[in-house]
Amino acid sequence: LPPEPTSPPLPVLADVERAAARIAGEAVLTPLLTNPILDRLSGGRVYLKCEMLQRTGSFKFRGAYNALAALDPAVRERGIVAASSGNHAQAVAEAARLFGVAATIVMPADAPSAKRMRTERSGGRVVAYERGSEDREAIAARLVAESGGTMVHPFNDAQVIAGQGTVGLELAAQMAAAGATPDVVLVPCSGGGLSAGVALAVRARFPEAEVYAVEPAGFDDYRRSLAAGTILANPRASGSICDGLLAEAPGAIGFALNRRNLAGALAVADAAALAAVAFAFRELKLVAEPSGAAGLAAILDGALGVAGRTVAVVLSGGNIDAAMMAAALAA
Amino acid sequence: LPPEPTSPPLPVLADVERAAARIAGEAVLTPLLTNPILDRLSGGRVYLKCEMLQRTGSFKFRGAYNALAALDPAVRERGIVAASSGNHAQAVAEAARLFGVAATIVMPADAPSAKRMRTERSGGRVVAYERGSEDREAIAARLVAESGGTMVHPFNDAQVIAGQGTVGLELAAQMAAAGATPDVVLVPCSGGGLSAGVALAVRARFPEAEVYAVEPAGFDDYRRSLAAGTILANPRASGSICDGLLAEAPGAIGFALNRRNLAGALAVADAAALAAVAFAFRELKLVAEPSGAAGLAAILDGALGVAGRTVAVVLSGGNIDAAMMAAALAA
Repeated sequence: LPPEPTSPPLPVLADVERAAARIAGEAVLTPLLTNPILDRLSGGRVYLKCEMLQRTGSFKFRGAYNALAALDPAVRERGIVAASSGNHAQAVAEAARLFGVAATIVMPADAPSAKRMRTERSGGRVVAYERGSEDREAIAARLVAESGGTMVHPFNDAQVIAGQGTVGLELAAQMAAAGATPDVVLVPCSGGGLSAGVALAVRARFPEAEVYAVEPAGFDDYRRSLAAGTILANPRASGSICDGLLAEAPGAIGFALNRRNLAGALAVADAAALAAVAFAFRELKLVAEPSGAAGLAAILDGALGVAGRTVAVVLSGGNIDAAMMAAALAA
Repeated sequence: LPPEPTSPPLPVLADVERAAARIAGEAVLTPLLTNPILDRLSGGRVYLKCEMLQRTGSFKFRGAYNALAALDPAVRERGIVAASSGNHAQAVAEAARLFGVAATIVMPADAPSAKRMRTERSGGRVVAYERGSEDREAIAARLVAESGGTMVHPFNDAQVIAGQGTVGLELAAQMAAAGATPDVVLVPCSGGGLSAGVALAVRARFPEAEVYAVEPAGFDDYRRSLAAGTILANPRASGSICDGLLAEAPGAIGFALNRRNLAGALAVADAAALAAVAFAFRELKLVAEPSGAAGLAAILDGALGVAGRTVAVVLSGGNIDAAMMAAALAA
């Protein structure tokens, strides 16, 4: 793998706008919904950006497609490599399929079969590795070296961040069309690519909006990194049901943006994320995964008081299996 | 209860347009979504009108709100009565709450507690009756006589049908905005209020569109009634998981409209409805109830071939409990 850039080229609004033009017609312009029950419960006016309705079931398709679209075609033809067992894997495989190029996804051997199936049905080749004994990064680097392909990082990539920023561009336009001005924007956060793109795009239109990253409790690397002014890692790699929000540490590019643009970071407990999944099922009639419901959880459990405020929440994904949903509905 | 009119006043397009103006700001303008997996599987271009995202979780809010809005305020103040254990109950209670008038809902004593809870939290007063030994219609008639209130029928009511027609008005406008012309429109069907309203509105804009009512297998009163040219009842009152599609027989007003406007009626088996619920969960990330997924089931199980055609499907509701969803995901 190439080393992380020390002076990363930071994406700007024009990159997000270019990404929006590239993904148009392939990505879903996801709806921005409101719900009277949620407004009554929270006392705020809450707008939900529904990225579970995005192609492949999460926002990740935007960044993956934009990253592939931005490549020189001769480079892109040599294929794409990604290391992910989750939403990025499905997104890269589907984007590669649309460009007619090969995608090789390095995935732990114990990844849920549904995630593997969804990657493979988009034509992705899955290379399994043993989580305990093998080094994912080394395997991916070897695949890149062998194939001449391009590694697409899930978050530490300017074009990926620009693609995720289209969530914010749409959200801002949809809120403006509804005559609403966001006081607060809540974005689930792992490596920080989505929050970086969304904050960049939303604050270009609404400079007063406070954008918060929402992390799982115990995996608050972003909160601690923002406080320290430097990138700090999580002490653990697993242990939350928010399996999409467990990146080791903030990515350098997103962190450089987020230091400027975020108002802060909030943490939600697993129980709150599960309760938000259940609320989404019962009241919103939307299928959210725990990671994708983290922003909603921050409202419902009172981590952020929103009474009297206008709040936009990114519901970032809906790839949840039946057992996890059953657990949420039984809690 | 008043007798069903023999020469019912049939709603016309202007009634639907008036309903649209009345419900604006209270009802959700629900999104029309597409899904690449569904298009690949079916070979068609499928547009999904997502009424589970409607206030109270189903399209029923539209008709209920319009019926209440159309009443003389002095009449409306005497309160509303409805007989329903399902989506109409929740819709009438919520519409009455918004108008600040009382709603009394006659509901079987064995109705699911979630449905009762959702009716009561909108301020509806629930009058329970014993399904085996008591006459629901007689109880409702007594409540109307005692209170001077107004009975709002779930489907045999011109203003209710006009309200449901706003689904079709929006769908037609959304398809036109997307540059699409529907060849086929699929609408779940019980008493025929939704299909009557949707067919009226859609065919005003797209006269060539074939609109089909979709019923549960074994409860194909609409298909038989259309074939016979007269209203025929179902032989049974229960026995399908599509609990929202078990009206005894077509309503007179809707049937008079549907005889003109429907291309026909299709039937789907319970297993197909359950499979459609699971598909909506896994692929669309939408929570659909079996009744609400009947139109989608007709596509997925091949009841209607849609290869090469442009199809609009009304997903009419999402009020499903955890046990039914678990059954769908385990099937």
